[in-house]
Amino acid sequence: MSFYESIDRACELNGSMVCVGLDPVLEKLPDHLVKIPGSILEFNKAIIDSTKDSVCAYKPNAAFYEQYGIGGIKVLHETISYIHKVAPEVVVILDAKRGDIGNTSKAYAKAAFEDMDADAITLAPYMGSDSLGPFFEYYDKGCIVLCRTSNPGGADLQNLETGGIPFYEVVAKKCAEWNTNNNICLVVGATVPEELKRVREIVGDEMPFLVPGIGAQGGDPKAVIDNGRGNGKNNLMVNSSRGILYASAGEDFADAARQKAIELKDKLNSLL
Amino acid sequence: MSFYESIDRACELNGSMVCVGLDPVLEKLPDHLVKIPGSILEFNKAIIDSTKDSVCAYKPNAAFYEQYGIGGIKVLHETISYIHKVAPEVVVILDAKRGDIGNTSKAYAKAAFEDMDADAITLAPYMGSDSLGPFFEYYDKGCIVLCRTSNPGGADLQNLETGGIPFYEVVAKKCAEWNTNNNICLVVGATVPEELKRVREIVGDEMPFLVPGIGAQGGDPKAVIDNGRGNGKNNLMVNSSRGILYASAGEDFADAARQKAIELKDKLNSLL
Repeated sequence: MSFYESIDRACELNGSMVCVGLDPVLEKLPDHLVKIPGSILEFNKAIIDSTKDSVCAYKPNAAFYEQYGIGGIKVLHETISYIHKVAPEVVVILDAKRGDIGNTSKAYAKAAFEDMDADAITLAPYMGSDSLGPFFEYYDKGCIVLCRTSNPGGADLQNLETGGIPFYEVVAKKCAEWNTNNNICLVVGATVPEELKRVREIVGDEMPFLVPGIGAQGGDPKAVIDNGRGNGKNNLMVNSSRGILYASAGEDFADAARQKAIELKDKLNSLL
Repeated sequence: MSFYESIDRACELNGSMVCVGLDPVLEKLPDHLVKIPGSILEFNKAIIDSTKDSVCAYKPNAAFYEQYGIGGIKVLHETISYIHKVAPEVVVILDAKRGDIGNTSKAYAKAAFEDMDADAITLAPYMGSDSLGPFFEYYDKGCIVLCRTSNPGGADLQNLETGGIPFYEVVAKKCAEWNTNNNICLVVGATVPEELKRVREIVGDEMPFLVPGIGAQGGDPKAVIDNGRGNGKNNLMVNSSRGILYASAGEDFADAARQKAIELKDKLNSLL
């Protein structure tokens, strides 16, 4: 099955374009949990159990696990295994923004796709085609390339003009060219809807976008749907992290997360 | 001590601008070593013991350890600890090309500088200032930003023109602006000497460059010295990985590595 088919299946199965960012920090765990890395696994499992029929993807960000050292990285591995076990059709995106020279990217691809068994990874494009190629070669895995990010500094370089268009549009065009295995996706933030629209026009309706930036960062779900889908279907994975994970600091955190995930799912579906 | 002072001290101590890239792969370990991740630690220790008086820096690349899972990552941690123990003045660069939104970069910085105790990290600039800021705040740690990389695909995006100059020059200019803590360095490859010269002109003589691309990639040591130093001193860390690590596949690998490191050190010094 191609990666695009995996996303399509996950979106159809749960009728959802919600991606939950699993970015846990000890200080924000529910009050009753001991603040040690092992508790993150317990926390993640409860979040996964309560939301797994309402999402198309989970997106653990490597940084949040690496910051707790070897113990944290073990939790990342175990979290991915757990998702595959209890929700085998839901896509696991390792959010890692990797990218390096060819033989090094090959090692990163092996780490993400073979050792950790992620279904997809996020990638930074600055080092060019041969830094991304080793990931693209895994034709059934997703390669989600940073195009236009939702953070304030995203504009620093991405919006500089080159050849009459902003830099992020060049990245979109190149990704469309490189997409011979139909496994390239793009990160396009929700915060500037016109840019989302422009990237969709460039790459056509099929390529899935991972869309961060709704919720805390201020992106509007309606603008995402109106500008991000084109005439496509199941081509958006709309990420929410903190808004779902930390919906409650009480023992009801998993139920509260479920409510927030369903709310977002329904909200997005109502806009179709 | 500022990071620039740390580099200066390391270069002076050993009279060397050589950085050894610790990028081990099991298949290339000496013939007599068992091909398991644990052997990589033994290999690294022997390389470090034999070269520690001839280099200014070691640069383990995270990918090569992550590809072997938790066991590999443990070896990375232990390698960094070992360098600090036996060569406390030599700088440890975690080559990781990290960069993410603000709170995520903060977690990566914590992982690299606190948990792993690296002295410096390599960073990808695509996400802009707020993705790099959390690293810059560690004023005594080095933040080595990708500017012009030596791989063939490096030109894909980095050489696109914007505002009359190539993109990589914009990155150099921005890094010079952002460098309020005197801890920003740049990655500038050896393969195109004119570009090395141009970046040096932009940022002035003080900012250290990490220079990959000599040896296997074809960069010329003389061109690096002539174009990369300007009127500065101890502002270059010239990387070699495979040429030193795999100088011999026999039981004499550490001695052979030492010879290659000294040859490169002497070669570079002879060009001053």
